[in-house]
Amino acid sequence: MPELRKDPITRRWVIIATERAARPTDFLSRHVNDQTDPERCPFCPGREEQTPPEIFALRAGGSAPNGPGWRVRVVSNKYPALRIEGDTARSDIGIFTRMDGVGAHEVIVETPEHDTHLALLPEDHIADVIRACYQRYEDLDRDERFEYLLLFRNHGRVAGASLSHPHSQLIALPMVPKRTSEEIDAAERYFLKAGNCVYCEMIAQESSNGERIVYANERFVAVCHYAGRFPFETWILPRQHMASFGQIAAEDVPALANILKTVLLKLHLCLENPPYNFIVHTAPYELPNSPAYHWHIEIMPQLTTTAGFEWGSGFHINPMAPEDAARYLRETVVVAPATAG
Amino acid sequence: MPELRKDPITRRWVIIATERAARPTDFLSRHVNDQTDPERCPFCPGREEQTPPEIFALRAGGSAPNGPGWRVRVVSNKYPALRIEGDTARSDIGIFTRMDGVGAHEVIVETPEHDTHLALLPEDHIADVIRACYQRYEDLDRDERFEYLLLFRNHGRVAGASLSHPHSQLIALPMVPKRTSEEIDAAERYFLKAGNCVYCEMIAQESSNGERIVYANERFVAVCHYAGRFPFETWILPRQHMASFGQIAAEDVPALANILKTVLLKLHLCLENPPYNFIVHTAPYELPNSPAYHWHIEIMPQLTTTAGFEWGSGFHINPMAPEDAARYLRETVVVAPATAG
Repeated sequence: MPELRKDPITRRWVIIATERAARPTDFLSRHVNDQTDPERCPFCPGREEQTPPEIFALRAGGSAPNGPGWRVRVVSNKYPALRIEGDTARSDIGIFTRMDGVGAHEVIVETPEHDTHLALLPEDHIADVIRACYQRYEDLDRDERFEYLLLFRNHGRVAGASLSHPHSQLIALPMVPKRTSEEIDAAERYFLKAGNCVYCEMIAQESSNGERIVYANERFVAVCHYAGRFPFETWILPRQHMASFGQIAAEDVPALANILKTVLLKLHLCLENPPYNFIVHTAPYELPNSPAYHWHIEIMPQLTTTAGFEWGSGFHINPMAPEDAARYLRETVVVAPATAG
Repeated sequence: MPELRKDPITRRWVIIATERAARPTDFLSRHVNDQTDPERCPFCPGREEQTPPEIFALRAGGSAPNGPGWRVRVVSNKYPALRIEGDTARSDIGIFTRMDGVGAHEVIVETPEHDTHLALLPEDHIADVIRACYQRYEDLDRDERFEYLLLFRNHGRVAGASLSHPHSQLIALPMVPKRTSEEIDAAERYFLKAGNCVYCEMIAQESSNGERIVYANERFVAVCHYAGRFPFETWILPRQHMASFGQIAAEDVPALANILKTVLLKLHLCLENPPYNFIVHTAPYELPNSPAYHWHIEIMPQLTTTAGFEWGSGFHINPMAPEDAARYLRETVVVAPATAG
């Protein structure tokens, strides 16, 4: 059983998931090939039995679960960081706190096509991926044990993707992650002081200034964050105040697909298919209507390697001014490569 | 001039250091060779003119600055993230805050020998490296503009080291990094509640339990942290309460060299020369005698690649139980390889 442990100093929770590696030698081969062999890929159609059973799928009419015919398919992670069974009682061991590693860890297989990228899929397909994520967000909200849904995507080996077949992941957690709590506390402090959402203010200021705007459509805006930690770090925010990803309306989905595709494709073309992570920052399940917090996506290309130092100190060195990054991305003309299908 | 920018939400400062890279293509070649060619290494003796002038050195009697004859040598970073000239006035741009990128960024070249590691140096040489760091800590404390000294070491390319010649780095900052402030705030809250230093409590609890202890000598203890974020994450703490690295006494230095060598050598042998970072967590310059905070070194082997997600969420997945890591390290017999010199 995985275990959740709390740092008594920083109050940061960590998952101790020992089923993934047991001996020092398991860590020696870091240089895994970026590309999974399509002949053995467990996410390709026809190999559905190699994954845990399907939790949700968007399928052609009449196709049966756990066989081909799907457009988007959600399964449990075969090597989950957390387990769905168990309760969430905490216990103290002196100054330390622990609980069982209860949570959901799912994989959203974004397309049956092995050799493509999310950025290269048609917008209506990306909209289906978003709909699948929304369905999982809503479904896991019904489990009383979960306080937070962490929705994220790793692209490329150096960004942590172990399989190259396009996929996103979600982790439902029995607590709010420290980084999210910090953001919410800060947003609430700002709201108390200024009477407005700090993200709404940022959108207004950035839209009026314009130099860090990457792209915008009628419902969303993409901006290289003023104090971005990573070169080309880009945030996508809804223009209208909305605390939670779970608040998106059906009409928002095509606009979100449009901006997500546009930004990822600009990064893909400008930086030659960079490794990246993106994380959906959303309100905890119990605060869906917070007037202070504003959900958004943070896209972090992984182009520099100063990892550990910056992890440890919380102090980042970004070698690319966000204004310059935004200009490069604005100037990148989005023409989908022929493989876009 | 580099620039310091503050995130209006998380209050995290970021260095925007654009002199290091100017165009998207500068980021395309991530796969630099791990080993610097010794024929071109600017840290090797005889090439002292290739670095900025010497700030401090431990030298054989009679040898002149900026030439051979040194044991440990400190120079400014040739590509500094921050600049020593300038003032630290802050200015606001709407919701954003900025200041000039003022600070010191220095390199501690640990040995004239190119093909070795800190873990393989004799203890008396490591003691000299510590003395050089202490001299820089004290000297930079005299600059009124600096509030914090960040002392760290990157080993191996994936941990951010661009040159393989053994070296550490320091950055003197005009503010306290967010992670440090969080630690201090948490330690002070604990002190107010429990009347004791949380790190002292942790040392007592871990010493009495023993299962996460890696090594200890009369003055220091090394422990795999209960809620460690990284496999084999190991902390070195002084047994006696001491808030600041600047408080170490001359008699502490050989004991610190002993435990640092022992732990790094155990990691080197157990994990076959893993990439790692270590960071000295110390009190801000203005709080050298805090009863709540306790300086220590956090050593983070970089064995997993889930970087970006964990950066973004603050949520870490550690696939190795700290008890098991400590056991492996205790069982690793420290015999210095023949190259130890």
